[in-house]
Amino acid sequence: MNARDFVKRMLVGRKLSSAQLGETLLPKRIALPVFASDALSSVAYAPDEILLTLSLAGMVGFAYSWQIAAAVAVVMFLVVMSYRQTVHAYPSGGGDYEVATVNLGPTWGLVVASALLVDYVLTVAVSVSSGVQNAKAMFPFLQGNEGLVAAVIVVVLMTMNLRGVRESGSFFAIPTYGFMIGVLGMAAWGLFRIFGLGTHLEAPTAQYTVVGSDPYQGLIGLAAVVLMARAFSSGCAALTGVEAISNGVPAFREPKSRNAATTLALLATVAITMFGSIILLANLTGLKLIDPDGGSHFEQAGVPVEIAHETAMGQLARTIFDTFPVGFYFVITMTMVILFLAANTAFNGFPVLGSILARDGFLPKALHTRGDRLAYSNGILMLATAAVGLVLVYNANVTSLIQLYVVGVFVSFTVSQFGMTRHWTRHLKTEKDPKRRAHMQRSRVINTIGLTGTGVVLVIVLASKFIYGAYLAVLAMAVVFVLMRSINRHYQKVAREVAVGPTDARMLPSRVRAVIMVQEVNKPTMRAVNFARATRASSIEAVLVSVDDVETRSIVAEWDAQQLEIPLKVIASPYREVTGPFLNYVKGIRSDNPRDVVCVYIPEYVVGHWWERVLHNQTGFILKARLNFMQGVMVTSVPYQLASSKYALSRAQRNTAAAWRRPGSGQVRMGDSGREPARRE
Amino acid sequence: MNARDFVKRMLVGRKLSSAQLGETLLPKRIALPVFASDALSSVAYAPDEILLTLSLAGMVGFAYSWQIAAAVAVVMFLVVMSYRQTVHAYPSGGGDYEVATVNLGPTWGLVVASALLVDYVLTVAVSVSSGVQNAKAMFPFLQGNEGLVAAVIVVVLMTMNLRGVRESGSFFAIPTYGFMIGVLGMAAWGLFRIFGLGTHLEAPTAQYTVVGSDPYQGLIGLAAVVLMARAFSSGCAALTGVEAISNGVPAFREPKSRNAATTLALLATVAITMFGSIILLANLTGLKLIDPDGGSHFEQAGVPVEIAHETAMGQLARTIFDTFPVGFYFVITMTMVILFLAANTAFNGFPVLGSILARDGFLPKALHTRGDRLAYSNGILMLATAAVGLVLVYNANVTSLIQLYVVGVFVSFTVSQFGMTRHWTRHLKTEKDPKRRAHMQRSRVINTIGLTGTGVVLVIVLASKFIYGAYLAVLAMAVVFVLMRSINRHYQKVAREVAVGPTDARMLPSRVRAVIMVQEVNKPTMRAVNFARATRASSIEAVLVSVDDVETRSIVAEWDAQQLEIPLKVIASPYREVTGPFLNYVKGIRSDNPRDVVCVYIPEYVVGHWWERVLHNQTGFILKARLNFMQGVMVTSVPYQLASSKYALSRAQRNTAAAWRRPGSGQVRMGDSGREPARRE
Repeated sequence: MNARDFVKRMLVGRKLSSAQLGETLLPKRIALPVFASDALSSVAYAPDEILLTLSLAGMVGFAYSWQIAAAVAVVMFLVVMSYRQTVHAYPSGGGDYEVATVNLGPTWGLVVASALLVDYVLTVAVSVSSGVQNAKAMFPFLQGNEGLVAAVIVVVLMTMNLRGVRESGSFFAIPTYGFMIGVLGMAAWGLFRIFGLGTHLEAPTAQYTVVGSDPYQGLIGLAAVVLMARAFSSGCAALTGVEAISNGVPAFREPKSRNAATTLALLATVAITMFGSIILLANLTGLKLIDPDGGSHFEQAGVPVEIAHETAMGQLARTIFDTFPVGFYFVITMTMVILFLAANTAFNGFPVLGSILARDGFLPKALHTRGDRLAYSNGILMLATAAVGLVLVYNANVTSLIQLYVVGVFVSFTVSQFGMTRHWTRHLKTEKDPKRRAHMQRSRVINTIGLTGTGVVLVIVLASKFIYGAYLAVLAMAVVFVLMRSINRHYQKVAREVAVGPTDARMLPSRVRAVIMVQEVNKPTMRAVNFARATRASSIEAVLVSVDDVETRSIVAEWDAQQLEIPLKVIASPYREVTGPFLNYVKGIRSDNPRDVVCVYIPEYVVGHWWERVLHNQTGFILKARLNFMQGVMVTSVPYQLASSKYALSRAQRNTAAAWRRPGSGQVRMGDSGREPARRE
Repeated sequence: MNARDFVKRMLVGRKLSSAQLGETLLPKRIALPVFASDALSSVAYAPDEILLTLSLAGMVGFAYSWQIAAAVAVVMFLVVMSYRQTVHAYPSGGGDYEVATVNLGPTWGLVVASALLVDYVLTVAVSVSSGVQNAKAMFPFLQGNEGLVAAVIVVVLMTMNLRGVRESGSFFAIPTYGFMIGVLGMAAWGLFRIFGLGTHLEAPTAQYTVVGSDPYQGLIGLAAVVLMARAFSSGCAALTGVEAISNGVPAFREPKSRNAATTLALLATVAITMFGSIILLANLTGLKLIDPDGGSHFEQAGVPVEIAHETAMGQLARTIFDTFPVGFYFVITMTMVILFLAANTAFNGFPVLGSILARDGFLPKALHTRGDRLAYSNGILMLATAAVGLVLVYNANVTSLIQLYVVGVFVSFTVSQFGMTRHWTRHLKTEKDPKRRAHMQRSRVINTIGLTGTGVVLVIVLASKFIYGAYLAVLAMAVVFVLMRSINRHYQKVAREVAVGPTDARMLPSRVRAVIMVQEVNKPTMRAVNFARATRASSIEAVLVSVDDVETRSIVAEWDAQQLEIPLKVIASPYREVTGPFLNYVKGIRSDNPRDVVCVYIPEYVVGHWWERVLHNQTGFILKARLNFMQGVMVTSVPYQLASSKYALSRAQRNTAAAWRRPGSGQVRMGDSGREPARRE
């Protein structure tokens, strides 16, 4: 391995196709980071959101951070318990979309899919924004340009994904474990310093008092309930990404479902511990956050002060590692990297979901076939464009973006849990084995509790965040939903239209009449002539539309010189038009021989540069487009490769995922279709 | 004729195709307006440019307007005399481009073509700008928005031309004769009032004195020469469009050349008369113009005054028709309309020249075939975009735009006259008849005088205007020249590459192996199968790339149910890619049977709406694009017309020039190619 390869491998990991990823079964220690980076990364911003929402009540608010954190932990517990059931019931890794579609029907499946698609966009926007906010602890000069920096990072992620960089398990493992070690190590060191060494640790904001905003000030009455609900809703961002493991079951080692369930439990434990640690340390160090847009501010000795916003993670790392800067840099770097990694998982998840939706006819079918990179690229571009728009509009403000987030996640949680209860009910109808029945009934109880829990959270989230931005997320989901349903209806309509009837396979045209389009007498035309002759059509003729008398005479002379024994028909075109007269000629053949089929041969230049395309083939393209509308006509392009085409070919090959199997080796035979080709010589 | 048709006919004239225009031979009284609107319209701005350039010398300058006008008239006489020779020598109407190409070679032809293309853009910009400036006499509220208004008018002209509105002779006749009657009538009425009735007529600006700008003030020394040269150069704008008649000879009635020559003389007489009248009336009524950008301004009793700019035409019409407002409105309206008409002729001329250049391989070949509207549309769009850019950048300021103008015209005049002298010299070498020799020698003398005259003017124009804007025109011509030469070199390179060799017509592939691309079992696929079977290839097989096991099994089952006796090969694609495995399969066939040709049949949906294109055929398109790079492979699209395709068809038909002949009727046979089709049944 040379130095460059080594650096590359360090930076982007070993190149591993998704198929290989599926084949290489993951041990739990690798599966956890692969599927948990998204869920764990939210620990970097969820505590902040709780604290700064509570700041609206002033100093009294922070006292409740414990309760909110506990509530979030309870929801986390419920969700993980529920997904452990899903993991057992759907080892195929279909995810919420499959659960909803199978158990509740395609409409509910589409609801989940719309929610997930919107949430992928928000995952990118929120994760990258939070990464940039945390990076400010190390790079203060980012202050003021957060939106732009976040947009650049989204574009970098997009470019990596467009270029087809795929991560290996260890690529995920390093920063995920790094993040875990960093945060838990920081917590342990902090607690040891406070309780073991008795050091008095004070966060940079400990010296200030926080003045809240009017309606919430003092946290009394209805306002208290509303504020608690808002803090809780924002804290629930910690749950995003938990569902990832249930999608990844097939990648686990045997026993897949059990290992996945264990990993889920592990994830929940780690996430709750990290989450709790940060809240605990924030309380111990007197850390405070404010929400300037919401109306809270810092005061010192009764005088309002303005200081640059620093995340809880940044403040804690600065405080706890005040004597050990390496620790500070490690924690902040790992936080940043895991957040960008979480955004990157959306770049993988979005096209995968798109592919499944395409398979089911809710998105353009081309998205289903992977290799044609174009399709995936479109998904990646769409995701990146939407995310860049969001981070620019919201200037990478996590607090604003979080108002749109979480709705989608809980829509999909709730619908999925509802689907799971139906699943168990359905299976209980046929299951006789009392032991398995008991198991199923237990699972149904857990999923019902999960459904109730996530449903309640969804209502709280919607109610407390609707006017702050959640309505936009709901609107986006509705638009995506309507769009996908329209696409599906179109496909269904077309499918009905093209369904094979009893006679379709028997409608053999009696003869094929070949018509060669001639514009010049040159190698491409000769190739078209030779190919047309090789097909042994019942009649062959060459047709030239004359737009210029002098030119026509010279072409006719050259044609005759070739002694091809194929007549060259010259069609006069007083308007110097090619398409019209040619189409009419073909139409004439068709109406004279209604039971025959006409095959039009068009010589085509294959060129290497985009500008060459402007210079060649235009007439052929227009003609083809119009011939397509004619019944009983097929169009054969006979390509002629110009020398310059090799540039385009090498470009195209570079852009296609490199490895596919040698011809034949990947060929399998199914059914009884493998008959010998019907030779007709 | 109903009311709507009547209004339309009044507005746009009877629809007349260009071919009909050619067939309907024009009497001189119609030919004059058809070909002279451009040349005559310049009378609306050329006198203004002389006057306002002279204003830089202060009051003393205007006294020289007579001399300048006389010089312009002399050049007009020379140019018209010269073109009368061209009209006789080139009755085919090839124009300056043909004269230069034939006599001086393609490089000089290309110089002329570049000059003309750039000048078409300037004709649109200058004419429309002048139209707007003149319109201000009627609509003072246009003041301040000239650039925008001019841009809108260019867009309107563009739209009319994109929609294929073509003018009949009478459409030109009404405003052209209206303009002539208006201006000459105004002149007659004005002279009659001044000399016949003794009325004292004073232009609105007569009361002011003009203070010139420093170097030219008082018109002394070298500055006087420079200023005279500049005024003369701007006045030469009156000559633009004179060459139009020499392009239009074939449209004249017999004797074509003679009638065209007479019309040229007529045009010159009318133009010089109108031009002279305006200068005369301006002198008689004390009309003054200033060039604020150049540095001259109005004063009244020693105090500088600022008044809104009004064109000479506007001021004269206001003064002479002060008691007869109908006359005022008539003259201004006709001036406006003829200027827009002149701009419109560029919209016709630009694509025609483009078509000729395309025929000769200097522009994309597709521009040569007319009917495919796309090609013409591109030319129209390019012209309009460039003109809109100019009027916006220069805010429809005629004085600024005129600095760029005229250069191109005189480049083409000069090169063309040079070509004509060569033409006569060449013909004199072979001509024996003394009478015709005398005639030719006389023509050569005239063209030599013309060459000298236009050459001197070109030098004066270049020298006096270069730093004021002409350098931009020269730069644009250079860019266009280089671009066209590059295109030509590309075509020549390709032509060498594809020239037919001795064996090309004999390289018959031994067999055709048909491969049908299957993605679903439906009507389009069945049609592809039936068409492929009808071609009686030596082997037929259907190929399905399996991206989804479940789906594949169901497709195989449906296939078998059709009992087609064609094997369905299933190619495994572990990467869910279609293109790669399919290409490899075809490559395998090719390398196993190098002397055969593979014909890939791709079923294609023909759809009606653009968004349906996103939903269908993507895989087929990508596959086709890649198959094109393979030697010995042809691709046959088998279109299946969905019900929605009829919308697209009717749209396409609406967009194509309506009339072409019935099949067969336009078919002529040339040479000995009309052999019977080689039937092979």
